Amino acid sequence: MSEDERAIREVIATWMRASAAGDGETVLSLMADDVVFFVAGKPPFGKAEFAAAQGGLEGARIEATSNVREVQVSGDWAWCSTDLRVEMTPAGGGAAVRRSGNTLSVFKRLPDGRWVLARDANLLTVES
Amino acid sequence: MSEDERAIREVIATWMRASAAGDGETVLSLMADDVVFFVAGKPPFGKAEFAAAQGGLEGARIEATSNVREVQVSGDWAWCSTDLRVEMTPAGGGAAVRRSGNTLSVFKRLPDGRWVLARDANLLTVES
Repeated sequence: MSEDERAIREVIATWMRASAAGDGETVLSLMADDVVFFVAGKPPFGKAEFAAAQGGLEGARIEATSNVREVQVSGDWAWCSTDLRVEMTPAGGGAAVRRSGNTLSVFKRLPDGRWVLARDANLLTVES
Repeated sequence: MSEDERAIREVIATWMRASAAGDGETVLSLMADDVVFFVAGKPPFGKAEFAAAQGGLEGARIEATSNVREVQVSGDWAWCSTDLRVEMTPAGGGAAVRRSGNTLSVFKRLPDGRWVLARDANLLTVES
C-alpha cells in the first residue's frame, strides 16, 4: 500500500472516530473548502450546509463503520469507494436509525500535502 | 478545455445518444470491463448485470439529458459529476417514468488511449 493510500485511509478512519466523538471541528478539517456532497433527492451541497446539519445533530450518538473497498491515487487526486454503515441515536435517546450502502468519493492533495475530501456521493439508505 | 476533458464529455454524449437509439452494444463499449456501478438500495454491480438490465429494456424509449458539472483529469484517471435526467417510456407505451439527480463518476484511459467509465455512483430519484 502506498504512502498516499495509507494517508487517505487514515483520513477516513479519523472522520469516523471524530464523528463518533462528536468532534465536528475535526470532521470539517478533513474536507476541502470547496467540497461538494451529492446525495439522493436533493441538490448538491457544500461545507457550510454540512456544518449546519452537523450542528443540528448535537448530542446525537453516531457510530459508523467504514469498509474501504478500494483507493486509487493519481497525482494530486484520488478516488475511493467504501461500504459504509451509520447508526444514529437521537440526542436524549430514542430509536436508533441505521443507514447502510456505498460511497464513491474524490480526495485531493492540498498544497501542504494533506489529503482532504473533495467530492462525495453518498448512496446510503435506511435499513428496515 | 483539454483534449482529455473533451474526449470524456464525448463519451458521455455518445452514451446518451446510444441509449436513446437503443444501441446497447455501443453503451457497453463505453465502460471498462471491470466497471462498478453504485446505486442506492442494492449491492454494487458490474458490466454483466448492466447488460442484462439493458436487455430487459428492449423496446423502451429512453431519453436522457446530461449536464456535465465538471471534469477533472489526472494522468490516466479522471472524475466527473453531472446533473442527469432520464425519461423512460416502457415498451408498448404506458406512463413515462422520470428520474433526475446527480452522478459522480470515475473514468480511466485504456492502453489504446480511449477513455471509458470505470466507477459510477448514480443518485437519481423518481420525480413525483
